[in-house]
Amino acid sequence: MLPTTKDRILEAGAEIIHQKGYNHTGIQEILNAANVPKGSFYNYFKNKEDFGLQIIDRFQCHFDRMAKDILEDTSIAPLKRIDRFLSASMDHFQSTDYTGGCPIGNLAQEMGDLSPAFREKLREAMDAIIGAYSRVLAEARTAGEISEQLDVNETAYFIVAGWHGAIIQMKLTKNLAPLENHRKFIFNHILKA
Amino acid sequence: MLPTTKDRILEAGAEIIHQKGYNHTGIQEILNAANVPKGSFYNYFKNKEDFGLQIIDRFQCHFDRMAKDILEDTSIAPLKRIDRFLSASMDHFQSTDYTGGCPIGNLAQEMGDLSPAFREKLREAMDAIIGAYSRVLAEARTAGEISEQLDVNETAYFIVAGWHGAIIQMKLTKNLAPLENHRKFIFNHILKA
Repeated sequence: MLPTTKDRILEAGAEIIHQKGYNHTGIQEILNAANVPKGSFYNYFKNKEDFGLQIIDRFQCHFDRMAKDILEDTSIAPLKRIDRFLSASMDHFQSTDYTGGCPIGNLAQEMGDLSPAFREKLREAMDAIIGAYSRVLAEARTAGEISEQLDVNETAYFIVAGWHGAIIQMKLTKNLAPLENHRKFIFNHILKA
Repeated sequence: MLPTTKDRILEAGAEIIHQKGYNHTGIQEILNAANVPKGSFYNYFKNKEDFGLQIIDRFQCHFDRMAKDILEDTSIAPLKRIDRFLSASMDHFQSTDYTGGCPIGNLAQEMGDLSPAFREKLREAMDAIIGAYSRVLAEARTAGEISEQLDVNETAYFIVAGWHGAIIQMKLTKNLAPLENHRKFIFNHILKA
């Protein structure tokens, strides 16, 4: 099935916004990249904000697929899944020369203060990421891989925050050292029996 | 001493960029806020990037002063200083309705991929923040407040990353819960004897 015009606009937009940020990306630039004539944007989107909110859905889908493939793979022990998830993300960042970062984290930083509609949607997306970690941590706790004292939701919150902060550091160091440091600390100090 | 015209431009620019981001802020908007005529911008700055780099210096100075007041106050035990530093930051965020975040973290996220000059300067600023934490952690280790096994530089890196990630979460939740969660985890799991 060929992508629809709307799909092409969303795909080009997701790519450019991920690189440059939402406010720094113009509609014309997206339409040029998607090879779509200008007038057609408003056939598919009410305005730029409506478009931006649909881009968040797209990023969220991408995370959900990755979570389903790795974090929900019950053939693997829970903590090992988290380790694989971090490794897969690191492999990805190596392939992009340590650029881009997490689309949800980026937009949260850029838009969390500026648009209530973005904030609401990004909060749902962030909660979904934290929820995916929480479920694996609950399994890890049942399996005795982590301490029974840990609140899995708070722990997931802490891990996701640290990961987003490590990504910010990676954007400056342009290597995996910050992400490796994050992995080392969470496994040595938090995710242990 | 009255602020110079250049000071007024930098002060207005720092304020607006902190709220809206660098790329989303126009020179005209800054000059209007500073009540300075348009033509004068280029008497003080080569271009917008030069201006942005001087804004980073300003943010860095602000952090240095806060670090000097709290993190270097040797009349207080080292870990207590870190706790006070986090509390002071939380008080600040409460006063701004949980907006703004860390100017260095924001710009690292926004500009780390887009401008080598920004990246270099922001890396120095981030290293200075991490360095300030490292020195307190070294004192904490000497005082037996934290484990001798901890590498103070790696630990500082991890703490600063987690803090920046928690700030991203705060921009979505609009409360202190993410920052409180960060504080709880680092003191319960990392910063202990």
